[in-house]
Amino acid sequence: MSHTVNHTHDPRLRSWVKSSNPGQTDFPIQNLPFGVFKRRSNDDAPRVGVAIGDQILDVRACDKANLFEGEAKAAAAACESLSLNKLMSLGEDEWSGLRSRLSLLLREDNNEVEHHKQIIENHLVPMTEAEMLMPVEIGDYTDFYASLYHATNVGSMFRPDNPLLPNYKYVPIGYHGRASSVVVSGTGVKRPHGQTQTNEGEPPTFAPSKLLDYEMEVGFFVGPGNKLGEPVAIERAAQHIFGLCLVNDWSARDIQRWEYQPLGPFLAKSFATTISPWVVTMEALAPFRTEAFARTAGDPAPLAYLQSPTDQEQGGIDLTLEVCLASRQMREADIPPALLTRGNFRDMYWTIAQILTHHASNGCNLRTGDLIASGTVSGSSKESRGCLLELTWRGTEPVQLPGGETRRFLQDGDEVIMRGYCERAGFARIAFGECRGMVLQADGV
Amino acid sequence: MSHTVNHTHDPRLRSWVKSSNPGQTDFPIQNLPFGVFKRRSNDDAPRVGVAIGDQILDVRACDKANLFEGEAKAAAAACESLSLNKLMSLGEDEWSGLRSRLSLLLREDNNEVEHHKQIIENHLVPMTEAEMLMPVEIGDYTDFYASLYHATNVGSMFRPDNPLLPNYKYVPIGYHGRASSVVVSGTGVKRPHGQTQTNEGEPPTFAPSKLLDYEMEVGFFVGPGNKLGEPVAIERAAQHIFGLCLVNDWSARDIQRWEYQPLGPFLAKSFATTISPWVVTMEALAPFRTEAFARTAGDPAPLAYLQSPTDQEQGGIDLTLEVCLASRQMREADIPPALLTRGNFRDMYWTIAQILTHHASNGCNLRTGDLIASGTVSGSSKESRGCLLELTWRGTEPVQLPGGETRRFLQDGDEVIMRGYCERAGFARIAFGECRGMVLQADGV
Repeated sequence: MSHTVNHTHDPRLRSWVKSSNPGQTDFPIQNLPFGVFKRRSNDDAPRVGVAIGDQILDVRACDKANLFEGEAKAAAAACESLSLNKLMSLGEDEWSGLRSRLSLLLREDNNEVEHHKQIIENHLVPMTEAEMLMPVEIGDYTDFYASLYHATNVGSMFRPDNPLLPNYKYVPIGYHGRASSVVVSGTGVKRPHGQTQTNEGEPPTFAPSKLLDYEMEVGFFVGPGNKLGEPVAIERAAQHIFGLCLVNDWSARDIQRWEYQPLGPFLAKSFATTISPWVVTMEALAPFRTEAFARTAGDPAPLAYLQSPTDQEQGGIDLTLEVCLASRQMREADIPPALLTRGNFRDMYWTIAQILTHHASNGCNLRTGDLIASGTVSGSSKESRGCLLELTWRGTEPVQLPGGETRRFLQDGDEVIMRGYCERAGFARIAFGECRGMVLQADGV
Repeated sequence: MSHTVNHTHDPRLRSWVKSSNPGQTDFPIQNLPFGVFKRRSNDDAPRVGVAIGDQILDVRACDKANLFEGEAKAAAAACESLSLNKLMSLGEDEWSGLRSRLSLLLREDNNEVEHHKQIIENHLVPMTEAEMLMPVEIGDYTDFYASLYHATNVGSMFRPDNPLLPNYKYVPIGYHGRASSVVVSGTGVKRPHGQTQTNEGEPPTFAPSKLLDYEMEVGFFVGPGNKLGEPVAIERAAQHIFGLCLVNDWSARDIQRWEYQPLGPFLAKSFATTISPWVVTMEALAPFRTEAFARTAGDPAPLAYLQSPTDQEQGGIDLTLEVCLASRQMREADIPPALLTRGNFRDMYWTIAQILTHHASNGCNLRTGDLIASGTVSGSSKESRGCLLELTWRGTEPVQLPGGETRRFLQDGDEVIMRGYCERAGFARIAFGECRGMVLQADGV
């Protein structure tokens, strides 16, 4: 796995798109994430775009204007699609070629730009005029459990004597999620009904969940897949990863508690999973790669198929994650969203390469567009706990909201806003935009 | 849910396709299951077909020859596709219209047939000349655990004091499976590698699974879906079910045992799931509907959202299931496959309507083509145990094969053959064909 920092990361680069100056935006020229949008104003078809400042560049339109050639051309042609899947299926050379060319076309100190600038400007759509759509057709969605802190916290609530199961430090634990109910940021999330048991030994009731939670996660999208029966060596894992998004894996803790034995979480999760609309490429993230989680002295080494010196050195990603909450009352009182959680993706016990390689280690075929999420990202400190279950310790320590409210779990009207950003001295800050969702009242209440 | 027995079930019906006489075939005119095939002889595109005797009727070709009208025409037009999904998306009226028209075109005592017979004969493809393909594009695959006998057997091996968990008789337990690795009958299944722990407390090793198993299941395909956030009342569940297939949910018991806590089975299952190529419609199964599983006196009633008098009366399906095994040694000695398991789908604790309604009860959107499997079908007797784990009681009671071999779990070269059939006095026997898969040697062994 190599993460070469190249000219597209140069912090001195500026775009002639003025709103994209580093520090003013999540989307400077060093980022260039991909998404799918349509104009709000008409019955526009979905199209692939790249974020730059507060604008979206229509890649297909630029291709039709003959602004690409070579690998960039092949990648741009793959953007003539209703999703990112075709682009993601190509591979690192094409992705890098397209990103490099986009960087060139958008930078201000480039003579070629003067020639093309008018054309490109015609194909910039202000984000305020665009609706962001699901960026990817997801075949399978898998969710992991890769934070040792999260696993230990949750384990100690439910199994105080035995918080961490014996397999945890050997197996990147994961489970299949529900692909159909993955929705894009901004989609309302209706509080689910489900079976819950109030008192042990008593019959359950079927009612709206009372213990609704968010889970702050990071997801990656599979680029080229692997064939059924053909595992992916960890040294080649990076070639199969296109980029990252933010994931809110909404969870109904009361439903989960009653249903999850012996086959794992099911309806407690499958009512909705929200992802951010912009997919940040692995190339854009290259400057923020960092060493993998530092295992403590007593920890076992990963089994050989999960070991790679390069992955150990730079399998981590220094990506700060935040969750804010805005209640209905706060919105009505013009109180800005309150920060609940701030954590970092580098705190995960397993790297994304280990996760991908493990997933395919039995020959399971990963397909272009599959979404693989990390599991809740929690760190060692209280403020870095990535869900309310942990933050409020099962509701026993409610969080205070500005305006006087408290929260054990989510209430109707609560909007959960996730953000993610990468910062490093000597590099431009890049970020993921937002992953938002508001809790809507359950049916028939 | 209504299961009207209509003229297409008349046991006196005979087709002019001679090989389809009841008793001689799985596919008499009373069955007419749908599948996707291509001719072996050329680079034919996949096309939708209907099984009749030892022939496959090419539905698209018949449509082009103007043999359909009305609802049958709409359904036949939906067969101009590479999968059954479009047909499945339509609904009961169109499915029934097409099936009724096909029945009319294929029956021998019909004057209209003389007029069309030559045309239809031109569009019959012998099964020996056809390759059966995946019939459906599966969005999500879900696997349930709906046999009380299976759950109790497995539970008593792993938790002797507490075999059946307290939620079992309230919750149709299920979990998300892997859609990408669902394959059609005849596909080889490579023995997966995975982490297993030989002795408790010792580190695991990564090696080919030693405890490979089959699981005899029945799957149903979702017809029209439901929107996210909109559950399906149990009275309407049947409208969302197109038909059934056989499912072999291959399982690596040693991988499963080590990985499954706390999130459920993952790589122990995701290396392959085999389905039969023919989808038997719910209409064809109508004569074989029977009452739901008889709960014993102490059992709780299902919660209200899972209760329906009609489902109670005819939610079951009298479908006999068999698993045969042919080892390499047996094939070389010309010994026919040996019967290992014979069970019946009516023995499931939960009906398919309850399963579908529960799945969507949190608002989870089911999509056309989703595959929902029952879980291992086991009955009360030893010979009806639907997997080797149960049959050999974790390997402690090996099964004898003709030719002198024994099996605790599957060996390389073993071919597992599942069959399913429905028999009832006064009705023609219908069957599912075969669901086959051979265990192939692991890589690098």
